[in-house]
Order: sequence, then C-alpha cells, then structure tokens
Amino acid sequence: MVARLQPDHSRGAVVAAGDVPIDPRGLQCLAAVLGIAPVHPRVLLLQARTLDEDAAGEDGLDGLLHEGGAGELARYALRGRSDTGEPRILDALERAQVVVLASDQPLRLSTLLGGTGLARAIRRRNAEGAIVVGCGAGAAILCEHMLAQGASDGPTPRSGGAQLAPGLGLTNRVVIDQGGHASDRIGRLLAALALNPFALGLGIDAATAAVIGADNVLEVMGSGGVTVIDPAEMADSNVLDLAPGAPIRITNLRLHALVAGTRYDLDFRRTVA
Amino acid sequence: MVARLQPDHSRGAVVAAGDVPIDPRGLQCLAAVLGIAPVHPRVLLLQARTLDEDAAGEDGLDGLLHEGGAGELARYALRGRSDTGEPRILDALERAQVVVLASDQPLRLSTLLGGTGLARAIRRRNAEGAIVVGCGAGAAILCEHMLAQGASDGPTPRSGGAQLAPGLGLTNRVVIDQGGHASDRIGRLLAALALNPFALGLGIDAATAAVIGADNVLEVMGSGGVTVIDPAEMADSNVLDLAPGAPIRITNLRLHALVAGTRYDLDFRRTVA
Repeated sequence: MVARLQPDHSRGAVVAAGDVPIDPRGLQCLAAVLGIAPVHPRVLLLQARTLDEDAAGEDGLDGLLHEGGAGELARYALRGRSDTGEPRILDALERAQVVVLASDQPLRLSTLLGGTGLARAIRRRNAEGAIVVGCGAGAAILCEHMLAQGASDGPTPRSGGAQLAPGLGLTNRVVIDQGGHASDRIGRLLAALALNPFALGLGIDAATAAVIGADNVLEVMGSGGVTVIDPAEMADSNVLDLAPGAPIRITNLRLHALVAGTRYDLDFRRTVA
Repeated sequence: MVARLQPDHSRGAVVAAGDVPIDPRGLQCLAAVLGIAPVHPRVLLLQARTLDEDAAGEDGLDGLLHEGGAGELARYALRGRSDTGEPRILDALERAQVVVLASDQPLRLSTLLGGTGLARAIRRRNAEGAIVVGCGAGAAILCEHMLAQGASDGPTPRSGGAQLAPGLGLTNRVVIDQGGHASDRIGRLLAALALNPFALGLGIDAATAAVIGADNVLEVMGSGGVTVIDPAEMADSNVLDLAPGAPIRITNLRLHALVAGTRYDLDFRRTVA
C-alpha cells in the first residue's frame, strides 16, 4: 500500500539517508535534514536491534540528533514485534514531527514492523505532515518495494543479485540502496530494476540524504553523492533467461550522480533548478 | 596519436579484457577471443613486470593461451625501457597475429612502452591487421586516454578521482576501467568522463572481454559483464568548482550493462543485432 497516490502538499518529507557516521559529517547531514523541520522538532528515534546490541555505536545517533537541532527526543529500541504495540511508542509517534528509523539491515526493520499498527501509524503520520527519515538500512524500508539484500559483486547486475521485499510504502517512486557496501550498489540496483523497471533506483552515500518533498522533488543534502538510475527507456533485458548468478544484459538506462543542492523531479525525471 | 582516424576494415581488433583468472573462466574468455584470429595464431605475449615477480601467477597466462588455441607463442617480460629495443621482441611482433599485453597496473606498461619504437610497431601491426589484446591493467593502455589510477570510493565520482595519462592510442572512442577493483569503477569512469565527455566509458569484469572490431562495433565475450557509460547527452557538471575529493555532480548519462553476445556500435552508440 502506498501512502500517497495523489500529490498532497501537506504530507511530510520522506528522507532516505545513507549510513550516518557518528562524526562531524554525520552531524552535518542530520542537521541539514532537521533544518527542513520546525525549529527544535519533536523527534522519535526507532531503532531495530538485536538483544546483544545495546552498547552499539548506534547509540550515537541520538547524540547527533540532539546536536543537530532536535528538541524533545524519544528513543526506543524495537526487539520484537510485540514492542510495536507499546503505548508509549505510539504516543510518542503521535507527538513526533520527525520519525527516524535506523537498523543494521532492512529485513530486521521490515520483519519487526510489517503489518503492525505502528507501521500503519507511521504512514498516517507521514501523510499528516510528519517527516520520516530512514538512516542506513532504515532508508530501504521507506519504499513500497524494498531492496532487502543482494550479492556484492560490483557494477554488473546478476540474476538473483537483488532480493526485493515489501517495505513501509511511503514512496513507490524509488527503490533505494543505502549502500552499506556502497561500491556494489550499482549492480544491485540494476538487478532490481531489471525485474520491473517502473521505479527509479537511488543509491545513497554515507553522510548523505535524499530528501523527497511532498511535491516529489528530491533534494540532496550532506557531503556525499546520490546515484539515480532511470530505467524509463530501458530496452529488453535477458533477465528471464538466466541461470542464478549469470550477468544480466540491461541497456538504455539514464544515470545521474547528484550532490548537495541538486534537485531532481521524480515525476518528470529530470533535474530542476 | 590515434592509429585509425578513418574506418579501415583491415585493421585488427582491439580487445580489452578484464583480469584473466588462471582458471576455466579465464580460459573460456581467452579461447573466445582467440576464436576471432586465424586458427592456431602466432601470439606474442608482452608482460610488464617488476624484478621480483618472475614466479607470479601471471605465468599462467601463457598456459591459458596455449590451451585456448594459440599456435606459436613468444613471451617476453619487459623490465625496463631498454628491453623494448630487443630485436627478438621486434621480430616476434612482426610475425605475431595476436599481441597480448599484460601488466599489474596501467602505468607500469605506459612508462615502459611510451614513445618507444615497440609502441609504434604495435600500433602499426594493429593497423596492418594484428589483433591487440590488453589483459587486466593491460586493457587500459589500449586507449588514447588511459585511466591510470583513481580513488576507490564507490559509485560516486569525486574531484581528482580519476587520473588520466596518455596510452597506446589504439582507440580514441573509449576510456577503459578494467576493474582491478571492479566495484569502484563506476565512480572512476564518471570522474574521468566529467573531465571531457567525448569518449565512452567502458568498465570490464574479470574473465570478460570487449572486442572492438575494425567496424567499431564492440562485442562482449566471456562470463561477466561490460558496463558502458555514454556521456553524449551529459548536462553541465560542477567539476570545475570542486575541492579535491568533493563529489561531482554529473547528470544525463546513458548506462548499459552488456553481456556475452551483445554487440554495441561505438560510432552510433547503440546496441546492434
């Protein structure tokens, strides 16, 4: 289910961020993103984590959010699906102007959130105006079709090299590779687009964010780049005929490397001033 | 200097191969390439190597060439520029129907061969019909503008991320990244094309070859893929304004992922049947 089938200029931005390092680059990226929210916004940080990760570096995200301009900050670690029903989380979500999703891998979030009331509430809050930010693996889940995992084998797409799973569905215009292994994302994105070239592929560097406004114009923030792959004019591929692992032929894609300040219209598929 | 300014259907093919593993995949790729030469062709293998590399795995290349269909095979290791004047090498070149260049890095070959009579003789033999094959780093040097080295930082192009140097000049239509670190080649190629988008960027997987015929049609052989980046419609980039290492904005490139059997016309920049 896609939250917005019709343009609606009251919905909140959907922000896909790459890995956020706990350093000045990570801070600069998050501060820029928070800059589109009201001053000192109320932030809800939801982290998917395993039982043994309490001391992990992810803890630094709340520090960066505070330093980057967050006002009230609520943070919850989701350890199981039952956590998603916690009234204090749902209450915090109702108050939040910015929701931040973080995870070490996309499937950890989707298996925790999928089909829950919390997932529906996040979609509703975004439709009502709350900004939803996915950091790292949390970015992939923003999409209707989530790039769950894929082979890491360079820029050549391979049969079976991209596994898709249903995501939160805040946007259906893009498939996101947040690039835990940035260098291999091109092959994964091409393998995903070969399956059904209706969406744009977005690859996002660390310390970099793709901010998708209510007008479906994407703006890049942060210190790295965003790779856009547009398959609108894609020619026939051979993806149907291949053994697992065989390289995929896929031609006539449009590629853009975008940097901070660049704006790209997802509807018209072109850069805008 | 470019060997062929005019189409000349008597010149030999120029073959850019990725790294050739000494295994059945490498053999399959080399055998396919030798299949375009006369039966049991006379082959000259020129390897650029440092003094301490005599026992390196490169030695396996001559075994693969034999097994892949080579007839008479002459092999010389170039250790210094003075070696390029050896009469036995020049004699072997005059007899060779296939010349194979191998190196661990592009600059080792270009610093050995650049400006020598051997380099001129290789260009002449190619113009006369001899096939010239570059393997691994030996592929980069086939171009007029050789991608000498570059930062390995994923698919985002960065200022200073590609260093160009003059190559052998057997083709001026492409810039080649043979992808010792295949996964990072997209960023390097984009950084190179941002400097002057007149050429096509070619990224070549291991065990894979891009065979450029006299008609400037490229055919892929081997088990991997060839990435083609066509900057013909590239919009303005910000490459002039950047500090070293900053990400480059570069938009409206055309991207193709080609596999064995695919043919691509370098003049008309489109796939052909």
